[in-house]
Amino acid sequence: MTLQIAALASGVGSNVAAVIKSINEGMLDARMRIVISNRPGAPVLEKAAQAGIPVYVKDSADCENREDYDRALLAAICDAGADTVVLAGYMRMLSPMFVAAHRGRILNIHPSLLPSFPGRMGTEDAIKYGVRLSGSTVHFVQETMDSGPVIIQVVVPVHAQDTGETLMPRIQALEHRIYPQALQWLAEDRLRVEGHRVNLLPARKPNGSMASFGQSPLGPWMVSPPLEGF
Amino acid sequence: MTLQIAALASGVGSNVAAVIKSINEGMLDARMRIVISNRPGAPVLEKAAQAGIPVYVKDSADCENREDYDRALLAAICDAGADTVVLAGYMRMLSPMFVAAHRGRILNIHPSLLPSFPGRMGTEDAIKYGVRLSGSTVHFVQETMDSGPVIIQVVVPVHAQDTGETLMPRIQALEHRIYPQALQWLAEDRLRVEGHRVNLLPARKPNGSMASFGQSPLGPWMVSPPLEGF
Repeated sequence: MTLQIAALASGVGSNVAAVIKSINEGMLDARMRIVISNRPGAPVLEKAAQAGIPVYVKDSADCENREDYDRALLAAICDAGADTVVLAGYMRMLSPMFVAAHRGRILNIHPSLLPSFPGRMGTEDAIKYGVRLSGSTVHFVQETMDSGPVIIQVVVPVHAQDTGETLMPRIQALEHRIYPQALQWLAEDRLRVEGHRVNLLPARKPNGSMASFGQSPLGPWMVSPPLEGF
Repeated sequence: MTLQIAALASGVGSNVAAVIKSINEGMLDARMRIVISNRPGAPVLEKAAQAGIPVYVKDSADCENREDYDRALLAAICDAGADTVVLAGYMRMLSPMFVAAHRGRILNIHPSLLPSFPGRMGTEDAIKYGVRLSGSTVHFVQETMDSGPVIIQVVVPVHAQDTGETLMPRIQALEHRIYPQALQWLAEDRLRVEGHRVNLLPARKPNGSMASFGQSPLGPWMVSPPLEGF
């Protein structure tokens, strides 16, 4: 069923742009109903406006009570006719009330192989730790940060000379594929949460592979479950 | 410089066997001087004996004081002429005294993408969490468990239907390549610990790749840094 998406973002919103692109290309069965930001002037707002998508801005600096703030967001989401919440660099914890209101319909993307390196500085923390493989995770959102059931993960190599600035583009290039893919699986109603694990129901035309992997100009990568055309 | 290895293992010792095989094939510049176990009857002991390698067994159940126990191990390692300690499923914490005695010369392999899922049940914990990518990590040993600087990591996909029993063989097949590779880099004196990161000095014939990846009968995998012939 066509997803009616509300995207929440605090910054550049490259993942929001990737989702919009996938919708426009007919890959993702969804409509972007509204883009919401807690930061006035966030670049994602201009991207949304250029794409003709309504925006809603409410400065989180002005609002001391998280539940009051989130209630305003829920009203904006409801007014926009959205049924699915897509977090894309939304740098603010959601209240349990917000999570309960859209349980099972809130997705987040986090630039690490969760549960390693949750929190605001996932990429930088991975660099500091010295892991040789990192990546990104799309997951269902629960009350605690960066901890919900995992839908899809991508891995890329980390080099000894990497900084956050050199690693991030390699991760983001793949985020722009795995996030639309995860949303399309949600649109196809193929995701089943069983305990803390996510079971992906088979496609009508299963391709039989165990993972997607390849080599881009930015380097090698591997995705599990395998991508289906993204 | 040829490594003089003491291997510590509590169980089957498939990684010990893989190291011995790499030595015998002339891939790994090392000698296996002694195999040590804290469990009488551990299968690794028979493997070692068949390969003509001296063994030392001291039942950890008989010994209440960890430092006393580790002192006996240090003496056995010294007597055997070993200078490098290889942990391979050694299910016992080392005392800080032991770690200090061989600092920078103790390696461990752990069946997860550290820092995710440290501890005894790495593979099972990854399954329970529902990650879609897991693997194994070779790292230098520090006082705290499964936390030292990372030398090499391998990743494999995890499937929704996986159990520990089905995931483990896919991880182990790659462990048998990355552990000898990490040891060969140590033998070539190419590993430099800088803070918590490990810098791998270039090979004399650098191959220029960012990672090794491939597809085996067990499925796809990716290793970083890239393997050099292993």
